[in-house]
Amino acid sequence: MTKTLQLRKNEDHRLRAGHLWVYSNEIDVAVTPLTAFEPGETARLQDYRERPLGTVYVNPHSLICARLLDRAPGITPDTAWFAGRIATAAALRKRLFARPFYRLVYGESDGLPGLVIDRYDQVFTVQLTTAGMERCRDTILDALRQVMAPATVVLRNDAPIRTLEGLSPYVEALPAAPERVVVEENGLTFELEPLTGQKTGWFYDHRMNRARLPAYVSGRRVLDVFSYSGAWGIQAAAGGARQVECIDESRPALDLLLHNARLNGVADRVEARHGEAFALLRALHEGGETFDVIVLDPPAFITRRKDKTAGMRAYQRLNQLAMQLLGADGILISASCSFHLAADELRGTLQQAALHADRTLQILEQGHQGPDHPVHPAIPETAYLKCFIARVHRGDASV
Amino acid sequence: MTKTLQLRKNEDHRLRAGHLWVYSNEIDVAVTPLTAFEPGETARLQDYRERPLGTVYVNPHSLICARLLDRAPGITPDTAWFAGRIATAAALRKRLFARPFYRLVYGESDGLPGLVIDRYDQVFTVQLTTAGMERCRDTILDALRQVMAPATVVLRNDAPIRTLEGLSPYVEALPAAPERVVVEENGLTFELEPLTGQKTGWFYDHRMNRARLPAYVSGRRVLDVFSYSGAWGIQAAAGGARQVECIDESRPALDLLLHNARLNGVADRVEARHGEAFALLRALHEGGETFDVIVLDPPAFITRRKDKTAGMRAYQRLNQLAMQLLGADGILISASCSFHLAADELRGTLQQAALHADRTLQILEQGHQGPDHPVHPAIPETAYLKCFIARVHRGDASV
Repeated sequence: MTKTLQLRKNEDHRLRAGHLWVYSNEIDVAVTPLTAFEPGETARLQDYRERPLGTVYVNPHSLICARLLDRAPGITPDTAWFAGRIATAAALRKRLFARPFYRLVYGESDGLPGLVIDRYDQVFTVQLTTAGMERCRDTILDALRQVMAPATVVLRNDAPIRTLEGLSPYVEALPAAPERVVVEENGLTFELEPLTGQKTGWFYDHRMNRARLPAYVSGRRVLDVFSYSGAWGIQAAAGGARQVECIDESRPALDLLLHNARLNGVADRVEARHGEAFALLRALHEGGETFDVIVLDPPAFITRRKDKTAGMRAYQRLNQLAMQLLGADGILISASCSFHLAADELRGTLQQAALHADRTLQILEQGHQGPDHPVHPAIPETAYLKCFIARVHRGDASV
Repeated sequence: MTKTLQLRKNEDHRLRAGHLWVYSNEIDVAVTPLTAFEPGETARLQDYRERPLGTVYVNPHSLICARLLDRAPGITPDTAWFAGRIATAAALRKRLFARPFYRLVYGESDGLPGLVIDRYDQVFTVQLTTAGMERCRDTILDALRQVMAPATVVLRNDAPIRTLEGLSPYVEALPAAPERVVVEENGLTFELEPLTGQKTGWFYDHRMNRARLPAYVSGRRVLDVFSYSGAWGIQAAAGGARQVECIDESRPALDLLLHNARLNGVADRVEARHGEAFALLRALHEGGETFDVIVLDPPAFITRRKDKTAGMRAYQRLNQLAMQLLGADGILISASCSFHLAADELRGTLQQAALHADRTLQILEQGHQGPDHPVHPAIPETAYLKCFIARVHRGDASV
């Protein structure tokens, strides 16, 4: 029989406003002790007056001790239930994208908290980030097979966030996956490494931001900082850039980048520099180099709220270095994937960097994660990606 | 000789952070009385220690009593000065747009506070919204002729905001302007009325948001609320919509809309309904009509901060009505041009509307004003346009 989890008085507001998370201090543990639950177990959630709120899965060891699966109480998340949710998610992507390359399921925003699935044609990467989803693993795989008939499923269950749920990391391919898999984005073709690449090997979230490159790079010299395997740099070259320099700390990523440059016929205009971004930017500046367009797409500098001050300083330093490397009338494309840094805060950081570098800015565009990473309007945590495109003037022209 | 305007102690922070506005209560009127200035007069601005801050124009009758023209003190805003600023603005637009249709100058963001110029090929509409710019009118027209060689300039100086500067409204064409002028947007052609249309007759700011229509409307039934002369509705029809209903209160706008539908060969799929939006939405709902995609691009419901509460209620009511008219798996495109309503606040309003309408939302895209309306990162007032694209589910599926 399904167990019940009861909230304390007034702790149901966030859920009634649409959010899906329950924090452990919101539970009335005198009535329903969390210790009675196994990690990942399904339960009925109710408020302090025993009014039903829906079906959750529970993890007594996590700060977020339960996540809502369904507003209906007493649901069993079986193959049919998962297949329904996956089909709803798939219908959106099929409507939006002509080709089978996209994030198929984006966790909470698709009503599947703790589950992320990326599609690379017939290869699907699955990330289970909670004990609740890990426990449903076989059911999810059955449902995915039923709805999408994948050739290969790669379980990329090595995300650090799993430790918050007491889950150990593993990577597994069912059946064996090829070392490299093809992805298409904005009309170009790339290879990625689904078993060993960062996260699932490709970041679909910037698709629409990268689609804006051709408007800015034609005939220009471009610097792509934190290039990884070339998603930005190669799209810049294909978009008409005269020359593209790509910087990354990972040699395997740069090897893959050069391979991808050849695949797209732009190898003669793409160069890879191995090294740490801040140090290389300083060296380029000291060497008197300038660029017309610079792309900054760094890893998250702020992963926990307490890192915010230091992280903001790092974003400011990075952007200031980039502004100093831009020639007259330059273009800066500056992204952040730190959820804890709001878009307005990144904009403020850019302005601070400009004041320190004696530059003036015009923000031309503000981009976000693409529509295969929908934002849940009641869950701010689902909106994380910011990307500003700014025109950078030298000196203190009053613009 | 140029007069001087002196700030009180600690009133220089906003300007040093990059803003261009001075409020009348920030002036040390004991040292430099505002009453000594004529509306629009140029002055040197300095801080309380007499350190120069730049060149401003002054309006003693306005709450914003001065706006910074240049960080250099003692500048004369002559033809060469204006031509330089206009040429810098034009260089950006020429880089971004293949065709000569765009906002050429966007006020403060282009270092020309109080001046807005739209380009329709050889026809330019000019809006002067401050006494400082009105006083420079002939110099600006000379500079515009020098840089852009317009065939016709239409002075659309009838914006209500001019009253804050003590300016009276007028519309004037130099030389006579045609009644209708052609504009191109996203590959389509429209006619607008530069002398009598709303503002300058066309709203370029939504260009990139409208460019997203084809991804959502193909084969669908679309409702365009506050359609004006058809920028959204006709782009939806051309983007593949099965049928488009357009609602507007202005009969001349709807006549122009039907003309534009014929121009683009989509008249058989576009219908115009005359009437008040809220009433018509209710009538459609009572008549059992449903739509697959609804566009809400209303006029600003909040023009002054004190209207915010009432305005937010109006946005919520409007969005709730629209959600009720959407069929299963509908798409809502919901915009606001109210500066006083932040993007996150509009998103919250959409979520409230969804809760009241028993709908769940996925925010797929968040759009902004296009790059010919750049945002000045130190002047929040220059960022005003929000446009959410959301998928709307019926019932309380926990997504």
